[in-house]
Amino acid sequence: MAGKVNLAEKLESFSEQWAPKVVADYNGNDICVVRVEGEFVWHSHDDTDDFFLVLDGELDIELRDQTVTLGPGDLFVVPTGVEHRPCARRGEVKLLLIEPKGTPNTGDEATATAKVAI
Amino acid sequence: MAGKVNLAEKLESFSEQWAPKVVADYNGNDICVVRVEGEFVWHSHDDTDDFFLVLDGELDIELRDQTVTLGPGDLFVVPTGVEHRPCARRGEVKLLLIEPKGTPNTGDEATATAKVAI
Repeated sequence: MAGKVNLAEKLESFSEQWAPKVVADYNGNDICVVRVEGEFVWHSHDDTDDFFLVLDGELDIELRDQTVTLGPGDLFVVPTGVEHRPCARRGEVKLLLIEPKGTPNTGDEATATAKVAI
Repeated sequence: MAGKVNLAEKLESFSEQWAPKVVADYNGNDICVVRVEGEFVWHSHDDTDDFFLVLDGELDIELRDQTVTLGPGDLFVVPTGVEHRPCARRGEVKLLLIEPKGTPNTGDEATATAKVAI
């Protein structure tokens, strides 16, 4: 059985940005932590919701008709198929993400960053 | 589309213990917050992992062969079928839980607490 996971310690163990690290498994979903800064690409996921929980910093999730700004302790789920662009314009942001195993972070296998377990 | 969810605000909106409140949906899973204090019952889930993230306080997850103690920012997944007993013996604990919709919190429909969305 996997042990407990301290999210802050996991985040301290790497510095790479926009590269989700898998810290646990839940029913075939990857539980990931990630550091982000700057703008990501507009994308959507055809077959999964996209779960964000901000652990540190302030994240804008741009949608085509609004921007949702998340701070520490704020959770947001982008529904399946909805275009969005996560942006961290006011410093680095640390996030907890949940996504089904094999989900490309850009919504497209060709441009996705491979996820590594830590 | 559901809006952002501030976990601390949601937790401040009720005081009942051991009664998970649904704050978001992710791919057919209930994302819940819950306040707990004291000992829960020994149980297991035949068809799902059990996801715990401690937001505040200190939680012991007793397993038959060990006890895992979780503090704020600690995450633990009890695998499917593994007997466990969450215990909050040193004051109230606030948790984020994820479980498939319809999962009885005790592992048994007859004794489960109904989950309410807030």
